[in-house]
Amino acid sequence: MTATLIDGKSIAQAMRDEVARDVAELDRTGWAPKLVSITVGDGAASALYVRNQQKQAEATGVEFEQRTYPAEISLEQLTGVLTGLNSDPRVHGIIIQRPLPAHIPVKALQKAVHPFKDVEGMHPASIGNIVYNDLALGPCTAVAAVEMLKTLPLQVEGLDVVVIGHSEIVGKPIAFLMMGLGATVTVCHHMTRQVAVHSRRADAVFVAVGRPGLVTGEMLKPGAALIDIGINRVDGRTVGDADFDSCAEVAGWITPVPGGVGPVTVATLLKNAVLAARMQRDHYAANYAAS
Amino acid sequence: MTATLIDGKSIAQAMRDEVARDVAELDRTGWAPKLVSITVGDGAASALYVRNQQKQAEATGVEFEQRTYPAEISLEQLTGVLTGLNSDPRVHGIIIQRPLPAHIPVKALQKAVHPFKDVEGMHPASIGNIVYNDLALGPCTAVAAVEMLKTLPLQVEGLDVVVIGHSEIVGKPIAFLMMGLGATVTVCHHMTRQVAVHSRRADAVFVAVGRPGLVTGEMLKPGAALIDIGINRVDGRTVGDADFDSCAEVAGWITPVPGGVGPVTVATLLKNAVLAARMQRDHYAANYAAS
Repeated sequence: MTATLIDGKSIAQAMRDEVARDVAELDRTGWAPKLVSITVGDGAASALYVRNQQKQAEATGVEFEQRTYPAEISLEQLTGVLTGLNSDPRVHGIIIQRPLPAHIPVKALQKAVHPFKDVEGMHPASIGNIVYNDLALGPCTAVAAVEMLKTLPLQVEGLDVVVIGHSEIVGKPIAFLMMGLGATVTVCHHMTRQVAVHSRRADAVFVAVGRPGLVTGEMLKPGAALIDIGINRVDGRTVGDADFDSCAEVAGWITPVPGGVGPVTVATLLKNAVLAARMQRDHYAANYAAS
Repeated sequence: MTATLIDGKSIAQAMRDEVARDVAELDRTGWAPKLVSITVGDGAASALYVRNQQKQAEATGVEFEQRTYPAEISLEQLTGVLTGLNSDPRVHGIIIQRPLPAHIPVKALQKAVHPFKDVEGMHPASIGNIVYNDLALGPCTAVAAVEMLKTLPLQVEGLDVVVIGHSEIVGKPIAFLMMGLGATVTVCHHMTRQVAVHSRRADAVFVAVGRPGLVTGEMLKPGAALIDIGINRVDGRTVGDADFDSCAEVAGWITPVPGGVGPVTVATLLKNAVLAARMQRDHYAANYAAS
């Protein structure tokens, strides 16, 4: 193996340390952030993930309330819950845990979260603000992947970047975030004729498809950075979208899975909680300013 | 010259014919679209453009009201005007003519237009919905450029596309629109190391930078499509961003400037007026449905 590991755990720890300092400062003016996490149905699929969010939130001083609603709840009832949380000054961020029951369209819920409380960065207005390079709350996984790249000694302006996967919440936002930083970005996906033609000329490759072994060493330029966002279960092990061994022989830097983008994603959620609390504080101050 | 011209005027005429039919249908249920155009200051720079919008709107049956406000108006006053137009059921779309006086930030105004009345497709939520492939009202120039490409006998899925220019309202939206159609998209800009390395492998090139002569024939793959969105004044003539003569020798298809993307952009604005009126009609019907 020639590649250097990009250590998600230590990057996440540094981010959480900063969040803890910011939370302490917010707390002094009555704005310590609080997150409300909403699970619909039994939540078995997300329980581990939610517990991890809660543990990390509480370690940084972010209050975390987990609510569970029955699988039979209607969209109207859930939207009503969100309207209540939007107007509750004690709540600064709302997390909608997935999966949701089939009768609840996830996008309708995401749009019902006020953009100021959209700590997952999923509201169309949040996505649009990223396009406008006006980064408020970005989608956590995409922001986390970009944060990892930014820790490397690479000049991002003019960097040739290939993003494999064009999902709305990961691939596309990574593309605009990197464009906003000055990179030249190509987005590949399942309709791309030859992904390797693109990936082999890239200084950095992001992969977020959900297919183990999709990226192999021969698809990379020697010395390139590889950020692997995939999380797949194979034979009881968690692996990414890259064939780690062959990629690690060619890449200059590579993220492990697990221990790569995952921990940084949770830290990004907490950072978003701080940003959301600050936006709400500033908005509140502006509206109650003497006039 | 070997390239076939992509005739913006005839594409725009076909779009206006469709708009006229749609307007007639909307009119039967009381929803004939009305646009309000807002100019701030003397408006000399946009007067010709506004008159053209008005003429084309009226030719398709779209009502067009031009309002001019004094250059001294404050942002708060203008926002108040927009709030009034947002809540006026007789107004279906709002156009903010540029340039604006220096003390009026254009983004603040764009955000103050309700997304349902955002016929220019500039609100962050409109941009975000494009990313979500949930095309409601798209930015007119970007949508027009993509519409022109779609008239060509090319399979867009898997097409290698290079967009030169990464502005929020043209380059980036073209990129997502083309991604949404299944193309493999690379976005180049002033920080890209060698634009030609990218453009020479592209099946289609969009250029929207505002620099005459930026794209030359030797930067293109033989037979490629070239959509030129630039509008520049050089020695009293209007030219695009491409060196037309050398590009027309190499490209398979090319847009003229003038007579290319320009007329299609105005037709797209009118199409957006129809889409906006329909969204408002459907929203109105949903809210007044018997419950």
